[in-house]
Amino acid sequence: MKIVVDAMGSDRHPQPDVEGAVQAAREYGVEIVLVGNRDVVEPELAKHNLSGINVSLVHASQIIEMKEHPAAAVKSKKDASMVVAMQMLKRGEVDAFVSAGNSGGVLASALFYLGRIQGVKRPALSSVFPTRKGPCFLLDLGANTDCKPEYLLQFAIMGSVYAERVLGIANPRVAIVSNGEEEGKGNMLVQETYPLLKASGLNFIGNAEGKDIPAGFADVIVTDGFTGNVIVKLTEGVAGFLLDIIKEEIKSRPLATVGALLAKGAFDQVKKRLDYREYGGGPLLGVDGIVIVAHGRSDSLAIKNAIRVAKQAVERGMLHAIRNDIAQSLSRFAEE
Amino acid sequence: MKIVVDAMGSDRHPQPDVEGAVQAAREYGVEIVLVGNRDVVEPELAKHNLSGINVSLVHASQIIEMKEHPAAAVKSKKDASMVVAMQMLKRGEVDAFVSAGNSGGVLASALFYLGRIQGVKRPALSSVFPTRKGPCFLLDLGANTDCKPEYLLQFAIMGSVYAERVLGIANPRVAIVSNGEEEGKGNMLVQETYPLLKASGLNFIGNAEGKDIPAGFADVIVTDGFTGNVIVKLTEGVAGFLLDIIKEEIKSRPLATVGALLAKGAFDQVKKRLDYREYGGGPLLGVDGIVIVAHGRSDSLAIKNAIRVAKQAVERGMLHAIRNDIAQSLSRFAEE
Repeated sequence: MKIVVDAMGSDRHPQPDVEGAVQAAREYGVEIVLVGNRDVVEPELAKHNLSGINVSLVHASQIIEMKEHPAAAVKSKKDASMVVAMQMLKRGEVDAFVSAGNSGGVLASALFYLGRIQGVKRPALSSVFPTRKGPCFLLDLGANTDCKPEYLLQFAIMGSVYAERVLGIANPRVAIVSNGEEEGKGNMLVQETYPLLKASGLNFIGNAEGKDIPAGFADVIVTDGFTGNVIVKLTEGVAGFLLDIIKEEIKSRPLATVGALLAKGAFDQVKKRLDYREYGGGPLLGVDGIVIVAHGRSDSLAIKNAIRVAKQAVERGMLHAIRNDIAQSLSRFAEE
Repeated sequence: MKIVVDAMGSDRHPQPDVEGAVQAAREYGVEIVLVGNRDVVEPELAKHNLSGINVSLVHASQIIEMKEHPAAAVKSKKDASMVVAMQMLKRGEVDAFVSAGNSGGVLASALFYLGRIQGVKRPALSSVFPTRKGPCFLLDLGANTDCKPEYLLQFAIMGSVYAERVLGIANPRVAIVSNGEEEGKGNMLVQETYPLLKASGLNFIGNAEGKDIPAGFADVIVTDGFTGNVIVKLTEGVAGFLLDIIKEEIKSRPLATVGALLAKGAFDQVKKRLDYREYGGGPLLGVDGIVIVAHGRSDSLAIKNAIRVAKQAVERGMLHAIRNDIAQSLSRFAEE
């Protein structure tokens, strides 16, 4: 299996991207193609022992920066690392693509070069979200700020396929984010999507309120990209705020400092349980290729794990399964 | 000053509602009228020493339950505690109303009996949100699941008035929830509201991402009621989840238990800093009367503090200020 990695993706590129790729090549036995500016990537690669693993470099002179307008940048920068990598995926030279770069840029270049899976209206950004009962798969996280009910139905189908096939969750419970538990609660979009989800043949269990998400209420939770983006960033913000004020309060007490030292192992374990890096990255679902989007703040562990996610998606036939289930859904709703 | 309190509001009514009212009467020197079923409220009142304070009871035979459809319940239950109380406020017999009951019911009865302040398109539910830099005022929290740009502009005006007048924040910074920092980011609603806020004369500082909210980025944050509801409930859920797993991890380590004992004071202080009860309740802004909505889970401390909020809103001329600022805004945008 051959996976192409954007060497210029993460905020601190190319160090984490290259290191994570080298580690993944060794640990998972995958072949890695790094794409990026050889002037900075080659010296980074030279720091690693590459014997016995297959890591190569394809030069790309440009970068799409985090602050650039994605669609415009993808059009104008034909030699950007993510554009070059996406074209390799399109030509079938690699099996999957991993990038921690500008997610809008990855989305725009995937739409431009790969296109959508037949029948898919809109692709969705996704991620695994830690909950009290284990991982929950959340989408869309920002690819589509304004959605139609049909898009959310398709996000639910794709999310369910991913949870079952790649995450290994049998008959995943699917919910939709709403502002109340009962059927009938929600904005117009949610109220119109609800009956589609009920009739979808998915294991739809209803509305998830904000408090239900970290409680592990469902395995797959769908929402529009605006709300999904707010959910993910708010969760990061609240967790960071809470851990900070706990530390602050502990530091302000002499005896509690001793306590904090003793409790350190527990805190470290909590951080590990909440660590987005364990999941590495989330698939860009609905485009005609396996594309994994990692966090801009990724370190080498996150990049390595994102490559593991890509490998699993390839091995477990994610694309084929989505293609099938979307086609089935289209014929189901066409018949009615 | 005379404040009417829904004795049948909170989940564990009438105990917290009555106790909080009695405490408020003593601590803040306000006159309290409790409204509720005399068969349960009288025995509860009898547990307290009422000498030197002014607490009376008005009988109301019905209750609007948490699970009832608000508008239908308000129409059919003419003798519900919140309906009777709202009518007293309308008739000017009291200065403000506090309820921890069904917030949709409070909204429906306020709209039906008080009506809106002239020029206000939609009332908004609001609350103070704890942040790294002190309180932030967030609205709408669920009164309007689908909003127009004009509504959000008015929420910003009312929120700004409240923050300045009642919370005492000079020239409050106003932001709008979005899925990106830059102008131009957001769903259609946010993109259309942005220029209105820029032209509003408010101290508008731009988009607030999810992570910015607990960071204390702004003093007033506006959003539609769907997103606002998700934000408040998700924050509760994430904070609860995090504190639970910290406790879990600490308990699973023998030495850390000692640590936890030593750190207990710090944890208690953290909880206090995050405690919604400190703020008591948030005003229902835009209706023609001072109505404070408290959390259904309120205990007597939360009820007492909600009554303090009501008192401050009366003393500081909240209604008059909102009336003025809404009228000014209408003429400003009409002139252009």
